[in-house]
Amino acid sequence: MATRRPTEDTAAATEGFRPRVDNRPEQIIGIACRLFAKRGYEGTSLRDIAEEAQITKAALYYHFPNKEALYHRIVLDSLRALIDSVRAAVDAAPTPLEKVRQYMLVSADFMDADRDSWMAGSNAFWMGAESEPRTLAIALRNEYETLLRSCIADAINAGEFRPSNIALTGRFLLSTLNQISRWHNPKGAMSTREVVEQYLDMALHGLQATARA
Amino acid sequence: MATRRPTEDTAAATEGFRPRVDNRPEQIIGIACRLFAKRGYEGTSLRDIAEEAQITKAALYYHFPNKEALYHRIVLDSLRALIDSVRAAVDAAPTPLEKVRQYMLVSADFMDADRDSWMAGSNAFWMGAESEPRTLAIALRNEYETLLRSCIADAINAGEFRPSNIALTGRFLLSTLNQISRWHNPKGAMSTREVVEQYLDMALHGLQATARA
Repeated sequence: MATRRPTEDTAAATEGFRPRVDNRPEQIIGIACRLFAKRGYEGTSLRDIAEEAQITKAALYYHFPNKEALYHRIVLDSLRALIDSVRAAVDAAPTPLEKVRQYMLVSADFMDADRDSWMAGSNAFWMGAESEPRTLAIALRNEYETLLRSCIADAINAGEFRPSNIALTGRFLLSTLNQISRWHNPKGAMSTREVVEQYLDMALHGLQATARA
Repeated sequence: MATRRPTEDTAAATEGFRPRVDNRPEQIIGIACRLFAKRGYEGTSLRDIAEEAQITKAALYYHFPNKEALYHRIVLDSLRALIDSVRAAVDAAPTPLEKVRQYMLVSADFMDADRDSWMAGSNAFWMGAESEPRTLAIALRNEYETLLRSCIADAINAGEFRPSNIALTGRFLLSTLNQISRWHNPKGAMSTREVVEQYLDMALHGLQATARA
């Protein structure tokens, strides 16, 4: 695994006490994000992150007082970026059905662009309920899910979707999305978007061959 | 969290060296299964398991030489039981489409009956590739997935399903199943089976209102 080592990083033992190292927080976030995505929150220690970043724990503490703060920052940044790009695409789509499609496809693009970031955001919700950084992350996750549900409700009201349990329909679609990072190889033959295009065809038109009466 | 403490368990410091305590391995497995399901493999230590079981680490080592062995046993037992019940239902179903339905519904029943066991088995595949107990578990997981794919292939060949990428269709259906334990409250209004019945309606008939031409 490649580590991003800044060129000025030669006095590792003392550098933590410099008042500013411009891109250090971003470097730490990038490394932590990759480790959280790979090993999960519980499986990643501050020591792991400091070692991978080739800095002292003191330098790490200077930027992030504890693991929760670091994780918090990563998850919130990821979710905010995801929601912003999905919402822009939904707003631009002409019909409720197309809004649902765009929601799914732009989420797929987000996964294609930054898999670690997606996984860190996605894994956040499967942590124990007692975990500290959850509250704000859950508010963002709710915002993300609520956006899909409102598109589904609009599609039903417009007669484009069959009537259904809206919350369950949202979970149905999000389930397919959330599991992709568990099996899909980003370097494989299909992009996440291509997978989701096929999923959308299945979900919208159904697997069964005969048209409904 | 209730712990199952055997009545004879009064001399915790020495009992580990008794040659046989009949149901001790099952007790340990039940506790470990619950902890693995709740905290994941990495987040659960042998110390946690011994404490919850109110036995010494020596007693735990007597039955399971390490965490891998314990996890291995739990995952393999869970998956074997899941596959056996799903296969029996699939064999009894009259048509390929009904086999797909039974596959999903009996998996849901398995989740309803023993959520911890399902989660331990399900989580096993999301562990890092370097984890020891994975090989046999992956063989069983492949057996489980292959069974669904063969039902899907039969449904396509029988003209009951539209032609599709069979592997991707299997993942599509399994995604909805795998995510349930992440959000569904077993004590809530709907059973897992009821959720999966609605999912099957969506997946088989599609969300879109208009019948395909």
